[in-house]
Amino acid sequence: MNKIEHIGIAVKNLDASCELYERLLGAVCYKKENVESEAVNTAFFKTGGNKIELLAATSAGSAIAKFLDKKGEGIHHIAFDVDDILAEMERLKAEGFNLLNEQPKKGADNKLICFVHPKDTNGVLIELCQDIKNI
Amino acid sequence: MNKIEHIGIAVKNLDASCELYERLLGAVCYKKENVESEAVNTAFFKTGGNKIELLAATSAGSAIAKFLDKKGEGIHHIAFDVDDILAEMERLKAEGFNLLNEQPKKGADNKLICFVHPKDTNGVLIELCQDIKNI
Repeated sequence: MNKIEHIGIAVKNLDASCELYERLLGAVCYKKENVESEAVNTAFFKTGGNKIELLAATSAGSAIAKFLDKKGEGIHHIAFDVDDILAEMERLKAEGFNLLNEQPKKGADNKLICFVHPKDTNGVLIELCQDIKNI
Repeated sequence: MNKIEHIGIAVKNLDASCELYERLLGAVCYKKENVESEAVNTAFFKTGGNKIELLAATSAGSAIAKFLDKKGEGIHHIAFDVDDILAEMERLKAEGFNLLNEQPKKGADNKLICFVHPKDTNGVLIELCQDIKNI
């Protein structure tokens, strides 16, 4: 795995949290994007070579809505950049990790993504992500 | 703030988690360090230009022991690299953020550190850190 591509943070109110993270990071939100398949609205910030992704649910059934209900606002996942997501998925499966996705799926910010089951990683939800332009 | 310097992950068993993260990240733990002031043992991994820090408590009264009791294993904090920690602390105070430390303190991995109160940041514990060599 390469650098931390982004950290995903679950929030209740995207606009209010955007304003807060602009003040916190001293950086402007450079992109807002709806990801229909995940039922989330997202907002992105650049911090050095990494990104912060704020995630707000657009439906009560979405994974982020369930996370907020159970745990409240906070860090939802860490995403690592990978060169070849299919090869990395095979490597992790061979190492005994359970993946939440059989195949990579389209995520926000022009990425192919796959999640590793947090029960295998000390409760941390890990996302693999590969830039779609690299494929 | 600059790049994500590291992500701190609270774990129960440092040796077992070290082995797990070596398999997960495909990277070798490059440093283990006891931080007496925080009552933690730490283990570090490099992932691109970022780091993962595993944190295990060495006493029942430590912040990490309390975190594990309350929330279980998982992401404890995000640390951002800063050029000038005192200036960044002043900037954040002026923006209305509450800091958990009046003055920077010595952290692991040769850093001066300061935490921002998570109630001001959507439940995310943010650490500022500056390399001591830069002072």
